[in-house]
Amino acid sequence: MSVIALLTDFGHQDPFVGVMKGVIAGLAPKASVIDLCHEVPPQDVRSGALFLRQSVPYFPDGTIFCAVVDPGVGSERRPCLARTRRHLFIGPDNGLFSWLPERVLEWRELRVPDGASATFHGRDVFAPAAARFAAAGGPVPEIVGKRFKDPMTLPWPKDVVLAFDRFGNAVTTVESGPRAVRYKNKVYAVKRTYADVKEGQELAYVGSSGLIELAVRNGNFAAKRGAKRGDAVQPA
Amino acid sequence: MSVIALLTDFGHQDPFVGVMKGVIAGLAPKASVIDLCHEVPPQDVRSGALFLRQSVPYFPDGTIFCAVVDPGVGSERRPCLARTRRHLFIGPDNGLFSWLPERVLEWRELRVPDGASATFHGRDVFAPAAARFAAAGGPVPEIVGKRFKDPMTLPWPKDVVLAFDRFGNAVTTVESGPRAVRYKNKVYAVKRTYADVKEGQELAYVGSSGLIELAVRNGNFAAKRGAKRGDAVQPA
Amino acid sequence: MSVIALLTDFGHQDPFVGVMKGVIAGLAPKASVIDLCHEVPPQDVRSGALFLRQSVPYFPDGTIFCAVVDPGVGSERRPCLARTRRHLFIGPDNGLFSWLPERVLEWRELRVPDGASATFHGRDVFAPAAARFAAAGGPVPEIVGKRFKDPMTLPWPKDVVLAFDRFGNAVTTVESGPRAVRYKNKVYAVKRTYADVKEGQELAYVGSSGLIELAVRNGNFAAKRGAKRGDAVQPA
Repeated sequence: MSVIALLTDFGHQDPFVGVMKGVIAGLAPKASVIDLCHEVPPQDVRSGALFLRQSVPYFPDGTIFCAVVDPGVGSERRPCLARTRRHLFIGPDNGLFSWLPERVLEWRELRVPDGASATFHGRDVFAPAAARFAAAGGPVPEIVGKRFKDPMTLPWPKDVVLAFDRFGNAVTTVESGPRAVRYKNKVYAVKRTYADVKEGQELAYVGSSGLIELAVRNGNFAAKRGAKRGDAVQPA
Repeated sequence: MSVIALLTDFGHQDPFVGVMKGVIAGLAPKASVIDLCHEVPPQDVRSGALFLRQSVPYFPDGTIFCAVVDPGVGSERRPCLARTRRHLFIGPDNGLFSWLPERVLEWRELRVPDGASATFHGRDVFAPAAARFAAAGGPVPEIVGKRFKDPMTLPWPKDVVLAFDRFGNAVTTVESGPRAVRYKNKVYAVKRTYADVKEGQELAYVGSSGLIELAVRNGNFAAKRGAKRGDAVQPA
Repeated sequence: MSVIALLTDFGHQDPFVGVMKGVIAGLAPKASVIDLCHEVPPQDVRSGALFLRQSVPYFPDGTIFCAVVDPGVGSERRPCLARTRRHLFIGPDNGLFSWLPERVLEWRELRVPDGASATFHGRDVFAPAAARFAAAGGPVPEIVGKRFKDPMTLPWPKDVVLAFDRFGNAVTTVESGPRAVRYKNKVYAVKRTYADVKEGQELAYVGSSGLIELAVRNGNFAAKRGAKRGDAVQPA
């Protein structure tokens, strides 16, 4: 029985994610449901896309990713299914699957069931699709619609700070390779890990997903440097 | 084997919920445990009751809801079991089960085990009861006490803002039906979804649980309008 | 199949914990994974140690605790395995296992796999070890290294406020026994539960893990008294 991995911007203060799991428990009681992340900043499709890029390789073959960061819910944006060699991806066609580290072999529309809420497709469209695919061992013809070749795609932003993690580390879009990066007129040699500098000192290093990150050892880089998303970071 | 759905105000910063799951894993290792929500505002029984109202219909038959929002823990308030046709509900008799969308067929007291902590019935009373019922496939006579007919009941507040979700949308107690609602001297036609208005505009719509909500498309209604719980909202 | 309990300071805003679960799902698909807590304050080994002390007794025999609060990741600090009669503990040897309520029978180093990231041992060292031990029903020789007898140990701080919970209750290091405690020149008789004082009044009581706590009934002690970690609390 498959793994279903959930990624949303629903947060934890509401019962939205719990309700999705209730729906899945009814349709695929043996599926193993994993919370990938629910604190994607509200309606921030790019952060959702980054989290998928960082996480997908570590999930077993056959995992069904159900990703709901969906500012266009109820509009004309398509619910979709993306299939790679190893995984299935279910969610809105709004760019969320732009940066997958796997080639998409096929894009399909997903049907919206009659009576679906216009504001909560996580509950009424995406969770049921993931659960039915998990229970059936693959896509179910009745809810898979026509193929398409023009998925919405977000460009990968070049040489910027893309996100911050809980520790205040800045994740950049510079991939591993350069020996140093420049940020706000300061050059940082790329180190191996935090412990390569002294307590409270700044460093660059190759993050665990292969992107260069900026940090303060046992401190908070975002706060210390007043760093913002979109700030320029150049290989140096 | 049953599903156990957990609802608490314990939040995520402490190991309280984890400990409840440890207790359940020992008594009902095959039960499937779902986090419905743990960010009910501290001791806010009404928000807990609302979350149950919104969520219960989406869980499979036989689900055991273990709900702990319990400002009166250790006092004379009764630990209780409520049984509906589809589900069991375990928690304090303090109004938490007032707004269930299912008729309660029977109310029973639950016994407090010897040696139970006076401050953590989630761990020592409610989680063990849920786990033992899950393992046994239904209520276990040794821990079920006498029937009662006078559960504590919260009135459903009429025509007010009851809660806000993570996106700043205001959930009102106005049920779907009216074509418009009035809030702070402004009349909002009830739309179908966010995308029916322009970016940044306010709207009313029927929320996914059948209550009218107020929102700003891709914005935060609570912040924009300085909305507060208890604010009046009238059908218009 | 074993239970794996996860304790980290990774929080919920990033996909770090989700990725660890993806790794576990690949190596031990039948393991039951429980989130003990992920909101240990960043790099706060003492809070992690306290949470283990409070939680461990409530988990079933054979549970594998995978604990990652790891400011020294990538440095010379040892990844380790601690074995007690009932449980296994996996994590950095940095004091996290200092306050276990069980005697450690054996300490072992854990091998770091080739190619492991220098900054995310949760994903590349600790989660895989926990999963492989769960799948094998016990420690796996290939990844267990040499025995050691000098684990890093944190002293138990005497007579202080050690932490605050979500409700603003102060957890002290005073174990149950005294009938009263003194905090900031006020003496608090040790009560049984919140309901033993009036709404808004302060009290001391024996917390659910056997340590004396200070609280305000249906209020927030930390905020009301300006309490800080490390504040003195004496038996009185």
